[in-house]
Amino acid sequence: MNPPVPQSLLDAPLSRERGPASLQRQLHDRLKQAILGARLAPGSRLPGSRALAEALSISRNTVTAVYDLLAAEGYLLPDRRGTRVAALTRPARSAPRHPVQRAASAASPALARRLAAIQSEPARADGEVALRPGVPALAQFPLAEWRRALDRAMGRAGSSALGYGDPLGEPALRHAIARHLSVARGVRCEAAQVVVTEGAMEALALCARLLTNPGDTAWVEDPGYRGARTAMHAADLHLVPMRVDAEGLCVPTSDWTGRPPRLIYTTPSHQYPSGAVMSAARRLELIANAQRHGAWIIEDDYDSEFRHAGDPIGAMQGLVAQAPVLYVGTFSKTMFPSLRLGFLVLPEALATRLQAPLGQLLRGGHRHEQLALGDFIESGAFGRHLGRMRRLYRERQVALREALSHHLRVPHAIDGGQGGMHLTVRLPSNDPDTRVAAAALRHGMAPAALSSFALQPAAEDNGLVLGYGNTSAERFEPLVRKLSQLARAAYTGVRSRSSGAGSG
Amino acid sequence: MNPPVPQSLLDAPLSRERGPASLQRQLHDRLKQAILGARLAPGSRLPGSRALAEALSISRNTVTAVYDLLAAEGYLLPDRRGTRVAALTRPARSAPRHPVQRAASAASPALARRLAAIQSEPARADGEVALRPGVPALAQFPLAEWRRALDRAMGRAGSSALGYGDPLGEPALRHAIARHLSVARGVRCEAAQVVVTEGAMEALALCARLLTNPGDTAWVEDPGYRGARTAMHAADLHLVPMRVDAEGLCVPTSDWTGRPPRLIYTTPSHQYPSGAVMSAARRLELIANAQRHGAWIIEDDYDSEFRHAGDPIGAMQGLVAQAPVLYVGTFSKTMFPSLRLGFLVLPEALATRLQAPLGQLLRGGHRHEQLALGDFIESGAFGRHLGRMRRLYRERQVALREALSHHLRVPHAIDGGQGGMHLTVRLPSNDPDTRVAAAALRHGMAPAALSSFALQPAAEDNGLVLGYGNTSAERFEPLVRKLSQLARAAYTGVRSRSSGAGSG
Repeated sequence: MNPPVPQSLLDAPLSRERGPASLQRQLHDRLKQAILGARLAPGSRLPGSRALAEALSISRNTVTAVYDLLAAEGYLLPDRRGTRVAALTRPARSAPRHPVQRAASAASPALARRLAAIQSEPARADGEVALRPGVPALAQFPLAEWRRALDRAMGRAGSSALGYGDPLGEPALRHAIARHLSVARGVRCEAAQVVVTEGAMEALALCARLLTNPGDTAWVEDPGYRGARTAMHAADLHLVPMRVDAEGLCVPTSDWTGRPPRLIYTTPSHQYPSGAVMSAARRLELIANAQRHGAWIIEDDYDSEFRHAGDPIGAMQGLVAQAPVLYVGTFSKTMFPSLRLGFLVLPEALATRLQAPLGQLLRGGHRHEQLALGDFIESGAFGRHLGRMRRLYRERQVALREALSHHLRVPHAIDGGQGGMHLTVRLPSNDPDTRVAAAALRHGMAPAALSSFALQPAAEDNGLVLGYGNTSAERFEPLVRKLSQLARAAYTGVRSRSSGAGSG
Repeated sequence: MNPPVPQSLLDAPLSRERGPASLQRQLHDRLKQAILGARLAPGSRLPGSRALAEALSISRNTVTAVYDLLAAEGYLLPDRRGTRVAALTRPARSAPRHPVQRAASAASPALARRLAAIQSEPARADGEVALRPGVPALAQFPLAEWRRALDRAMGRAGSSALGYGDPLGEPALRHAIARHLSVARGVRCEAAQVVVTEGAMEALALCARLLTNPGDTAWVEDPGYRGARTAMHAADLHLVPMRVDAEGLCVPTSDWTGRPPRLIYTTPSHQYPSGAVMSAARRLELIANAQRHGAWIIEDDYDSEFRHAGDPIGAMQGLVAQAPVLYVGTFSKTMFPSLRLGFLVLPEALATRLQAPLGQLLRGGHRHEQLALGDFIESGAFGRHLGRMRRLYRERQVALREALSHHLRVPHAIDGGQGGMHLTVRLPSNDPDTRVAAAALRHGMAPAALSSFALQPAAEDNGLVLGYGNTSAERFEPLVRKLSQLARAAYTGVRSRSSGAGSG
């Protein structure tokens, strides 16, 4: 009655080199593939474990374990007479119409529609490149001090901080952030209003998730921060670009009635990338209008700690009590990007209201890092680091301005520059910035094309955003000389083509 | 011509205790508040810096610095004749109709509609409580070994890993995950298909973000993982609950035509919380139908490393080539929850297609932790830890079964239990599990009510999900005795009430 050992199991010998666990895995895979490939017919009987073990010269325990597992997985059906092969749906050899095959083409309808908007954003430059905006002085970060802080936190908290913690973040860090913000930024908040996030990106995504519905209108600064656009595209918002002038975000009154927003994204202390400071008049008007029209303002205070002339400009959040302002900050510039810690300060009334949904959406985590950062802030190490970096960036900005004034031989104007870690250089509008930026990348530089910051680039949105945070001042002269060459080539090229076409 | 010093600036003396920086801040705030509060009228002139400095007995530099900052902020307008107060929109003293005030009430229309669905999920228990599902043995984690691995990674990578890295995760970790999955779980993948995420929650949120549009239908196991429901509610999907039986997710054929899904969420290797293993027949059928109807399957393999009888069940992902399966895993159970590292394995064709949008949506980060984890896996430390935990959880499960069989004095049945870190105990349907769970919490235990895992609880979805991962076996007897008391009280209470109503 014992069925014969199927030939397909005997065809190739099992490899014995890696021990019994490997033998078991090989036999399991061979049987499974034979069943899936119909070389063992549905309903057919398998030999008993003793017979198969003998045929393959392996231990009977191995065969029994494999039969048990295949039965648990549903490939085999044990019954009183032995073991049968289960009848299974044959996997489709090719299912040409499924999106997994079609997905390679951009037009695939089975992916999310929002991808079209998200991927229209320009890719960010990667790796160790000079003049890349948004990267702080990595080599100047006091890594040894941070390692000690982290090790101390792990030693103190030990395994008690291995579990899920407060989904809104470690209370000690939230307290430290609240204290720091009220002193350094004039933000009015208690620790209970602070939510620790995965950098500013998660804070922006949370704002959209908590406050908007798909299709709602969001106003964004134009030119403005590209990450904010991505976060809002990801939330299916309808983005309306708003121009920026010397007083920051500039809203025509008619837009409040014509296309009122649910959400307004702004960088009032140091507009990104123009560097404009939003005037008090504009701030108060924006808050008053938001209150009137039921809109929320996201104030992204991304690099306000680094102001080079005078004191830091105070935050909008603290300007008016009960203002509908959600304040977003990040430690990516003040500490280092791969720390991925940022925060969101909720208006007081929202903090209570959103406790429950935030408890579902967030999982806390990175508790040792959060405890170490809280300690770093409270011990003064953070403040000392900020002070050093403020001086360093001020020096670098002066040096970069100098290099530009001496070595950039195309007509240009420099924007902003009261703070931060970048300068925006506007170039003549017939000199395509994307071409200069692409050429620069081939020379190890990653300045960003100003036009790439705009949803609807105007003629004046042509230029380069030069990050000096992570590039030392000695390198500026040769780098700017090279940029000048590249810009002149593009400029001259365009000019001669334009004249050729009779319009120059 | 020098205007007098306004009385509002002289009313209270400035505090001199904290030095010149503090004096400057005090004066700045006092002037700003006087302007915002209209105690300094718009257009009025301020005294010269020398006069004000004398009146306040402070240095003239301090006054100049404050005037400069207020001018930069737009509160003051310097002109040839001196300094004027700017005309500003008065902030609304009360704007009673803005959502920030209304937000305290649950019905606020200015918050996202999806919050209603998200917060209907039951809150998770917090802190150090016994029998909480989903928490591994924290005290058994080799923290000292992990600290060394982390410190080694920081020493080796140094400041080069402080910047933004690969948005999809450190290549070394992605390779280690791909290798581990192919050996341990039969997953077919290359490192390029692996995306490192903030735990499984971000992986689920990404799947929704990349593959679905608002309003699309998603099938979820019922009862099933609550976090998956939250992630899908957050993405505005229409959730359809699908029952689970002894062979796992159970899909009536009519549903494929009646309410075809865009996304299917399943835990085939160890259904959460029933513990059922999806049979091979069901797996192949699900894949074939998904291929036919253009649906995506999310396979959440959350605790499959811990199988207590026989070998681990292989993943669905590797069953069929080109299957429309996105495989999700987490290190929250195998390492520790606050590490917040998980991963998503994309089908090969999608990995290329989604490179660009993922590059916009993700920022990498936690690079030292990722490098340390890659090293932990490759060095074998991870495998050794898994082996120890497998034995520990097996022992704990045996001990918990024993405690239940001796000390749980209500009619009950135990589900699943071929693996993982929890047992599901079904109780009589007239014995309300939420009441028992709430009572247990008051005694330092956090078993979850089985009914809370169901969108549409059936009569049999009544019971307790007991997590034994982080509770040592010696505690089981007294804990189960207490649970038995609580359940009996509820049971008897219900029975006597039912009999009183004549239906018992």
